[in-house]
Amino acid sequence: MAPDISQISRIGIVGAGNMGTMMSLGFSENGVDVSLWDISEQNVDRAREMAEQTRETLKGRIDHFKDIHEFTKSLESQPRKIFIFSITHGWPADSVLDKIRDDLREGDIILDGGNEHYRNTERRQKELESKGIKWIGMGVSGGYQSARRGPSLSPGGDKEAVEFVLPLLEKFSAKSPKDGKPCVQYMGPRGAGHFVKMVHNGIENGMLSTVCEAWSFLHKSLGLSYDEIGKILEKWNSEGELQNTYLIQIGSEICQRKKTPEGDKHGEGKGDGGYVLDDVLDKVVQDDDDSEGTGYWTVMETAHRHVSAPTIAAGQFFRVASGNRAQRLKVAGKLSIPKPQEVDVKDKQGLVETLRKAVYAAFLCSFCQGLELIARASRDEGWDINLGKCIQIWRAGCIIQQDYISDMLEPILLNAKEPIMNIKLIDEVSSELSKNFAALKEITLKGIEWDNYVPSLSASLEYLKYVGGGMLATQFMEAEMDFFGAHGYDRPHVRGEDPGKTAKGAHHYEWRPA
Amino acid sequence: MAPDISQISRIGIVGAGNMGTMMSLGFSENGVDVSLWDISEQNVDRAREMAEQTRETLKGRIDHFKDIHEFTKSLESQPRKIFIFSITHGWPADSVLDKIRDDLREGDIILDGGNEHYRNTERRQKELESKGIKWIGMGVSGGYQSARRGPSLSPGGDKEAVEFVLPLLEKFSAKSPKDGKPCVQYMGPRGAGHFVKMVHNGIENGMLSTVCEAWSFLHKSLGLSYDEIGKILEKWNSEGELQNTYLIQIGSEICQRKKTPEGDKHGEGKGDGGYVLDDVLDKVVQDDDDSEGTGYWTVMETAHRHVSAPTIAAGQFFRVASGNRAQRLKVAGKLSIPKPQEVDVKDKQGLVETLRKAVYAAFLCSFCQGLELIARASRDEGWDINLGKCIQIWRAGCIIQQDYISDMLEPILLNAKEPIMNIKLIDEVSSELSKNFAALKEITLKGIEWDNYVPSLSASLEYLKYVGGGMLATQFMEAEMDFFGAHGYDRPHVRGEDPGKTAKGAHHYEWRPA
Repeated sequence: MAPDISQISRIGIVGAGNMGTMMSLGFSENGVDVSLWDISEQNVDRAREMAEQTRETLKGRIDHFKDIHEFTKSLESQPRKIFIFSITHGWPADSVLDKIRDDLREGDIILDGGNEHYRNTERRQKELESKGIKWIGMGVSGGYQSARRGPSLSPGGDKEAVEFVLPLLEKFSAKSPKDGKPCVQYMGPRGAGHFVKMVHNGIENGMLSTVCEAWSFLHKSLGLSYDEIGKILEKWNSEGELQNTYLIQIGSEICQRKKTPEGDKHGEGKGDGGYVLDDVLDKVVQDDDDSEGTGYWTVMETAHRHVSAPTIAAGQFFRVASGNRAQRLKVAGKLSIPKPQEVDVKDKQGLVETLRKAVYAAFLCSFCQGLELIARASRDEGWDINLGKCIQIWRAGCIIQQDYISDMLEPILLNAKEPIMNIKLIDEVSSELSKNFAALKEITLKGIEWDNYVPSLSASLEYLKYVGGGMLATQFMEAEMDFFGAHGYDRPHVRGEDPGKTAKGAHHYEWRPA
Repeated sequence: MAPDISQISRIGIVGAGNMGTMMSLGFSENGVDVSLWDISEQNVDRAREMAEQTRETLKGRIDHFKDIHEFTKSLESQPRKIFIFSITHGWPADSVLDKIRDDLREGDIILDGGNEHYRNTERRQKELESKGIKWIGMGVSGGYQSARRGPSLSPGGDKEAVEFVLPLLEKFSAKSPKDGKPCVQYMGPRGAGHFVKMVHNGIENGMLSTVCEAWSFLHKSLGLSYDEIGKILEKWNSEGELQNTYLIQIGSEICQRKKTPEGDKHGEGKGDGGYVLDDVLDKVVQDDDDSEGTGYWTVMETAHRHVSAPTIAAGQFFRVASGNRAQRLKVAGKLSIPKPQEVDVKDKQGLVETLRKAVYAAFLCSFCQGLELIARASRDEGWDINLGKCIQIWRAGCIIQQDYISDMLEPILLNAKEPIMNIKLIDEVSSELSKNFAALKEITLKGIEWDNYVPSLSASLEYLKYVGGGMLATQFMEAEMDFFGAHGYDRPHVRGEDPGKTAKGAHHYEWRPA
């Protein structure tokens, strides 16, 4: 009889960084024995220390290995060896795979939980196919806290292999607060799982930018203190459209976190009063130091697959420009761009409420753009991804957790008879976007007037105008392209041309003979 | 003795579409015999017809071929066979190459003038290397009018081969109106030439979007007639910062082109009065029908190489969203976004002048973003591209021709001692951006207030704020990422950290223990 998952008593985790170490604790707390290996002996030692510190909560045994073959040997007695990789994308995964390749047997399963590019995942799947080894690309979302307490998981690849491990993953994963369902689903074949995780991070970038723009608006223009902003975010997170939005919730904590004599007990945040936030510089460097690819890969994919995603891209370009602070300060000295102004606003409370709606509208734009990218890729690649399942796994444990949007989209997308390629065509979505357009416009206007930063808010506003515009300024673009490139155009009010196909127009006017 | 270019009396052109046909006429008019072949017999016939119609201007002989081997045979007597490919990027080029491969000899040169992706170019160069055949990726810019009258050319690949054909290309290319220099330069090895052309088209997309946004502002908000706008663009094109801007110049013609009983003599634009522009729908489809890749490739490259390029990307996403008009109208029906408003402005002339400055600022942003992408790629790939030479070849014949910016940048970039990675650090550039920031802000504000389309204008405004911002809203983004991802941050006013490196920060605060 084929083995089932109940016969698996031990799994192997590769990588004892933040995520891997937390996963080792999380699986142990779920009663599974764990073997943990890392190429860095220091990481292994630190992981062992952490395990010792939390000994009382552990149920499964955790064994720490510095020798990779002893590590794989510790899994030999299992009917199928199951590995979770939690290491940096790219060559590190290839390098570890090379090291253990000879220790792998037919049927063994590797769940690559790193933020890997889906094409690399597909390459490894192919490489291992002939040996019958199953390489599963699995997004793991929620950061290191979730990696321990229950992350959101998006496995993709060989269906049999994913279904074999699914009961184990369901035990470990986050659970939806709505219906208790585990936040893990089989996403689809080949690179589908890592693609979904990549887009999750793209949506996250759009939302992160929106949140920091809102914070800047409240602090630098409305002159609110960190404490006041923390309270506002707390309220936003407790009700209405922004209820249970992870990035809003942690934002409220960040704003209210004061330095104390003890600090965080790891050496940071020590002081008498003052805010921890004031210790944080404005450099986001994950692109330039190559520790993260998912954000910019998402932008590349939206461009490649012709999905308009300006909210996500604006967030990405904003963060990229922030990274090289030394160069930025030099440019700042030359440009003398005005700084965000503090203004005296009469109806502050009213404006805060308008901002809340604008933030929600931009969040919804990020979701539309990300989901449409998944829909498009799923069609292009034949993955058959159910967008409703994406929403299901994003209900808890992950960074883009957003209850209101999920409540709205989950049933519609799960029950859709055929794939929905344009999320704005869903009545509920268009109604929400329509309702909050004026708020988005007002905040963008004020933000610009007061020289605050609104890249993703303004990009979302423009997005809504042009995805829902009847006659766009691109009429003139099309004429120019026909002028110099004989690109061709369709004519208004002509059957078969208006609206017509998304294909080269039927007419070319010889504006200037060659 | 090695042959030189004066011994080449005939070249072969592959592709008798708009561009290829015009090039055959252009080379003939420069006294060179041309063999022209196309896979479509219809295209060959049409090209023959055109050649007959313009017989009196032709100097060199043009022979039209339907059989590809007769075509290559017609070049056998040349000391080196020289081909120019003018066909669609991707598999068509591979397919033709396969057909003629056996007819090629060591030393033969193929100039691929299509809008090919530079990686495909590099692949073909490698494939042909062992046979000693030189594949040159050569951007050809300026549309079909320039293809005849003199285009801007950016050859890249084997240096010896490029230098061999350079005298011929110099005769054929556009000439700078400033100093009469030919708009063709050896760009660098491998894919450098096609990369530069790709970025040219990316800059073009940013500029095209800006121009159509300005047109919409003038027409739909200020209520100006096409004729009035045509006159304004004419004036802009005649003096100051926008003088001799190709896209402004043709815009002025488009606005003033009325229908006549004869039309354009090719069947379009017939009527009594009314504007040709009113025949043009707002669908730009070159991405979705896959006829053009350069625009979205540029966005992919900016994301991939971590160069903030929101002006270019905003233009691309705008045009992509315009393509599927049928779906857009459905969304429009549901969203009910307000249409651009016509307003009663007191100082219309003043506002038009402000708009002119805003357009210039956005153009300059597009150039900064594009040139920085080339600089980055050149460093990454070891191409050693001289940005000053890019400006030289963009002085005439090409779509992004812009005298004021070129006058400013050409001497600085040509004489730079080391590669300039950040164009905003050039005093003249930062001074111009600084001077026109207020205009860009005002137009963006008005455009948004009046529900007009300003995606690339607003993206340019945000770009300037954050590339020249001393303390960005990303401070809060960085804190959030440290909260859930332990990404680490640097601290303000700490030596070695502020401004510090573009690398993972030295501190992590344990906001919420796992």
